[in-house]
Amino acid sequence: MRRYNTPTLKRDVANYLSGYVDGEGCFSVSFSKREKLKIGLEVKPSFAVGQNYDRREVLDLMMDYFGCGFMRRDYADKTLKYEIRSLDELLEKVIPHFYSFPLKSSKQKDFLLFAEICKKMKNLKHLQIDSLKNIIDLAYQMNGSGKRKHSRETLKRFLR
Amino acid sequence: MRRYNTPTLKRDVANYLSGYVDGEGCFSVSFSKREKLKIGLEVKPSFAVGQNYDRREVLDLMMDYFGCGFMRRDYADKTLKYEIRSLDELLEKVIPHFYSFPLKSSKQKDFLLFAEICKKMKNLKHLQIDSLKNIIDLAYQMNGSGKRKHSRETLKRFLR
Repeated sequence: MRRYNTPTLKRDVANYLSGYVDGEGCFSVSFSKREKLKIGLEVKPSFAVGQNYDRREVLDLMMDYFGCGFMRRDYADKTLKYEIRSLDELLEKVIPHFYSFPLKSSKQKDFLLFAEICKKMKNLKHLQIDSLKNIIDLAYQMNGSGKRKHSRETLKRFLR
Repeated sequence: MRRYNTPTLKRDVANYLSGYVDGEGCFSVSFSKREKLKIGLEVKPSFAVGQNYDRREVLDLMMDYFGCGFMRRDYADKTLKYEIRSLDELLEKVIPHFYSFPLKSSKQKDFLLFAEICKKMKNLKHLQIDSLKNIIDLAYQMNGSGKRKHSRETLKRFLR
């Protein structure tokens, strides 16, 4: 994780990155059917930011700033994605950042739902049927226009 | 133009907007054949930032911050564009901002070429054949992947 020379410099970068994420970032929570899990469904939160491969400087800066996550090249659409999936890193690094330097568009609402879900997962709420149903409901309020493989009702039918 | 309560607040917004523009903004210089112009070619610089129509908050903030420009709805791709085309406003408001709060990706190179062209236009260089050829050369170094209606050579043939 980078050390900044002055608090002002760090604050400048923090605001810059929030602005960038407001345009190019995505908070999402996806679900996968998992026979091996007792409850039948895996919950996967992710913070991801995309960019064309030839303009990766801001993604490098962001990875340096957060000090975690990984880069993934998407050959299909010629983009690079910076992504953080670890629940602990999301809770310790990403979420505190966006509380301190909030998004100024309605994407902030997605972030707040995302943060709520991650905190519930920390308390293992995704391993109990009723609270996992609640997590599904919260997740399906996010990213209004996003496409989902399964309807909310189908997902809930996977639960055991 | 909005008045900010503290210099820190203004600086925060300035950094945020630069970050946003690094992802979603575009500096461009286009050329149109104009029979009525003595030199035969019009030069049109533009700074534009796009966003989905349902998430326009940052564009509103930006219009407020710069205190100029206009919004344009693009029905084709359901986006809203915030755009500044006036040379004086570009020179007095947009360009000084991006000198003070530079982009951190290679898009900054496009901005520097853009600023150079705008300054040349202020000195009426776009009305003289040789210096207009030079402006065309600079503009064609911008936005690497962008599509142009005319090749550089075709444009130069329009000059009189």
